[in-house]
Amino acid sequence: MNALGKHLLLELKDCDKEVLNDVAFLRGTLLAAAVEAGATVLGESFHQFSPQGVSGVVVIAESHLFIHTWPEYGYVAADIFTCGDSVQPGKAAAMLIRKLGAKNHSLIEIQRGILDTE
Amino acid sequence: MNALGKHLLLELKDCDKEVLNDVAFLRGTLLAAAVEAGATVLGESFHQFSPQGVSGVVVIAESHLFIHTWPEYGYVAADIFTCGDSVQPGKAAAMLIRKLGAKNHSLIEIQRGILDTE
Repeated sequence: MNALGKHLLLELKDCDKEVLNDVAFLRGTLLAAAVEAGATVLGESFHQFSPQGVSGVVVIAESHLFIHTWPEYGYVAADIFTCGDSVQPGKAAAMLIRKLGAKNHSLIEIQRGILDTE
Repeated sequence: MNALGKHLLLELKDCDKEVLNDVAFLRGTLLAAAVEAGATVLGESFHQFSPQGVSGVVVIAESHLFIHTWPEYGYVAADIFTCGDSVQPGKAAAMLIRKLGAKNHSLIEIQRGILDTE
């Protein structure tokens, strides 16, 4: 029995602090990661916090991606939630790790929607 | 040492199938859940899929809430990600369980951003 969704939880540490407060860069990166995974982008919402930090969500036809950044700690929480076999969320994760300059990271994969029915 | 974020992963099963395809109801419910938690809403993005299913994200000053619904299975994946001590994400979770009529559910809490530094 398959799960309906695949949920990747990324902890990105020791990132490039400069880019973690650059909302334009982060928006471009998260959208590029969605495309890299083969996803179809439907909507987005990004917010710059004062004095620092960015939250961003990209809604895709196959679910969503989000990032929350803490520039002061060089830390980013990122999630990639996808459903269906047409997308490759691991490619989006690899792009985020690379583009945000994460020197340390951990990745947990959680299966969502494991149902008792067929 | 405290985590920067608290991430609740909700699996809602045997929900009221009627409401899982009602984007207006779901938008109202997710926004109400954010308010119930004491969060400040910054943005949102909701999408109705054909023939069925809804994805919705509410970005809050304290991070985000999302839902993805599968009316055909009576199943909803919902996440409530918050940071700071001023919000009560458990209240949002309780509201979602109640409003979506989930007869079965599971809830996992994951701490995000446990850093080595002070």
